Amino acid sequence: MADIASGEKVRTLDLDLRRRATAVIPGGMYGHMNVNYLPDAYPQFYERSEGTRVWDVDGNEYVDFMCSFGPMILGYKHPGVEGAAAAQAAKGNTQPGPAACMVDLGELLVERVAHADWAMFAKNGTDATTIALMAARGETGRNKVLAATGAYHGSAPWATIRMDGVAPEERANLHYYEYNDAASVELAIEQAGADNVAAIITSPFKHNAGFDQEDVDPAFARRLRELCDELGAALVMDEVRAGFRLNHGGSWEPLGVDPDLSGWSKAIANGYPLAAVLGRGRYAEAASRIFVTGSFWFQAVPMAAALATINALRDEDAVAVMERVGNRLRDEFDQLANEIGVPIRQTGPVQMPNLSFPDDQNFAKATAFCTTMLERGVIVHPRHNWFLSATHTDDDVDRFLDAAQHGLEAVLA
Amino acid sequence: MADIASGEKVRTLDLDLRRRATAVIPGGMYGHMNVNYLPDAYPQFYERSEGTRVWDVDGNEYVDFMCSFGPMILGYKHPGVEGAAAAQAAKGNTQPGPAACMVDLGELLVERVAHADWAMFAKNGTDATTIALMAARGETGRNKVLAATGAYHGSAPWATIRMDGVAPEERANLHYYEYNDAASVELAIEQAGADNVAAIITSPFKHNAGFDQEDVDPAFARRLRELCDELGAALVMDEVRAGFRLNHGGSWEPLGVDPDLSGWSKAIANGYPLAAVLGRGRYAEAASRIFVTGSFWFQAVPMAAALATINALRDEDAVAVMERVGNRLRDEFDQLANEIGVPIRQTGPVQMPNLSFPDDQNFAKATAFCTTMLERGVIVHPRHNWFLSATHTDDDVDRFLDAAQHGLEAVLA
Repeated sequence: MADIASGEKVRTLDLDLRRRATAVIPGGMYGHMNVNYLPDAYPQFYERSEGTRVWDVDGNEYVDFMCSFGPMILGYKHPGVEGAAAAQAAKGNTQPGPAACMVDLGELLVERVAHADWAMFAKNGTDATTIALMAARGETGRNKVLAATGAYHGSAPWATIRMDGVAPEERANLHYYEYNDAASVELAIEQAGADNVAAIITSPFKHNAGFDQEDVDPAFARRLRELCDELGAALVMDEVRAGFRLNHGGSWEPLGVDPDLSGWSKAIANGYPLAAVLGRGRYAEAASRIFVTGSFWFQAVPMAAALATINALRDEDAVAVMERVGNRLRDEFDQLANEIGVPIRQTGPVQMPNLSFPDDQNFAKATAFCTTMLERGVIVHPRHNWFLSATHTDDDVDRFLDAAQHGLEAVLA
Repeated sequence: MADIASGEKVRTLDLDLRRRATAVIPGGMYGHMNVNYLPDAYPQFYERSEGTRVWDVDGNEYVDFMCSFGPMILGYKHPGVEGAAAAQAAKGNTQPGPAACMVDLGELLVERVAHADWAMFAKNGTDATTIALMAARGETGRNKVLAATGAYHGSAPWATIRMDGVAPEERANLHYYEYNDAASVELAIEQAGADNVAAIITSPFKHNAGFDQEDVDPAFARRLRELCDELGAALVMDEVRAGFRLNHGGSWEPLGVDPDLSGWSKAIANGYPLAAVLGRGRYAEAASRIFVTGSFWFQAVPMAAALATINALRDEDAVAVMERVGNRLRDEFDQLANEIGVPIRQTGPVQMPNLSFPDDQNFAKATAFCTTMLERGVIVHPRHNWFLSATHTDDDVDRFLDAAQHGLEAVLA
């Protein structure tokens, strides 16, 4: 492991860029990639990436367990995806209309995802969840939407995590339930009025940032489906974060529960900017009536990359690969923590690990752990789930465990 | 001109793709690139593009006067832009954080655009206008926004052109004025309540699709600035469609009127997916408080492409080039129409031409004209402004005029 230096990193160029950024970017950075509220050891700016490795602007190398917050499901610079993208780019990308690969991609998604009778494409996960709700409202003629407390469905005013800049009217149609609590859904329906509910939006499992993750209770999933059927409302699945990491189709297919509409982004094109809305036939007519578009939504390169990604995921048996590596990481990390005597909690699917420490005031333990991990060349996040890719190997897990030993000792100290 | 065949085009592959698309895409296509409501001669799917030329999937070649609805301001496959994008792609694109070029791009925009003290980046024009309004609301603590009747500011529920799928509450804070009519702005302020106005959003000129364009009255621009100053509200400029085609800075800089916030996209990265919000210092603190983000907003390749684009625009004196070619097209097209005896109206800036025919019921004349133009290998739009690029040459104008002679004769017949 000589190629990854341990101990405090040189961060001269990163700090210089951060000083410059403060002058021209509000707060110096914004959004989920803003490291101003993360451990000081976090680099803000990156130079290059390859496979499971990234290098910050000071040349420090890291094994990346964040996959750029999800997109890099096949690792950085996957040859099949890059080849497909380059071949399309040589022909055209942004053009006066889409390329043939848009139809190929629509057909592939309809084939792979059980509930999908049709597909639409956009750029952001937020676009996908917003369009799904528009299709639900357009079809039902109703406006109320039920969402789980604390769930993240995008950063548009109706969904973002803070109320700064949001007018209250933009949230007027939302009612809230507790994930995995069917009684709370029924209460929210009562509050909204059963005849007013256009959609219940949910996620494959509970992945609220800053909290332990929670797998879905299959009975809860089935009950959501029943309630939507009774109401004539759309069950909308937000697959943006988890899509294609849990299953080579919809995340709830193994439970036998299909949504009516689903929103996808992040991992569907291995880092190329794309989002998709998939839906059942009932919602196609409404989806054709709503007017949604974007200057870059019909770009050919991200669609060619998505075709290559989705095919590679199955060809490489990606979900099984991530599960095997993820199970090893979870088991040996638990064992290590037990040996060192630091209680930890690992929650959610193993391919999207989430770590927390019991009684962790202000994430102090998580911060100490992350700081050491970064100093030893491993990128993990103190308050957000991590992401495995199909490229993560036993060697990467070894590096994780080696760093984690020091990280847990730092927590103990 | 032997390389562009005239007369009805072979469209076998396009029609086959459209049949397949109908099965997996609602309505067969959606958004501004949907040709289902355009002349039959319009191709839906494109194979490749280069300079000012595009080829549809059946191999038919066209001179493109739409520039993919704006983005291709330097033409397809501009060597400088493609070189910068490829150099960045070889290092990294979607990574766990931005690359250094994000800071470079922020600095360049702050240098080039007079009112800009800071920059934020996103993917869609809709993201940019939405974020600008969030920053305005965040700073003023008010919610009402004034927009011009019929103006297009994006396809999010608050802005899109149809109410299908939109809950009325999402429009509750909007009041409307007539572009170039200061009295109507004052009336809208009265209706909204002067103390409630967070922002007045406007565009560099009136470019409502389906209507003649209208240059801004400088007195109206100055009055908007005065009213915003009196109200303590933000003047928000939607530069998404016109940005960098009228001026190598903000579009109203030649008038001496600066907005507080502006939203950019389309042409800023010559076809790479990027949007930007620029703002004055007063709005930086609020912009740092609102939570907006996207999985692909920090991608390095579009930012590297934007740096190359914005520098090339000035190095190539792009605005002057587009004005010269655009003036020739406008003058000689007017002369041609006069000779043939078909009254036409050309409106708006010459680099964003808009054609209409007086007394054109249901756009019948525009449709006949466009059909002939397409058959003769020239892409123009019957109801939306066209776009010139800095790559359009006198040869392209010759081709336009040659096709236009037949197009005008078809209108006459």
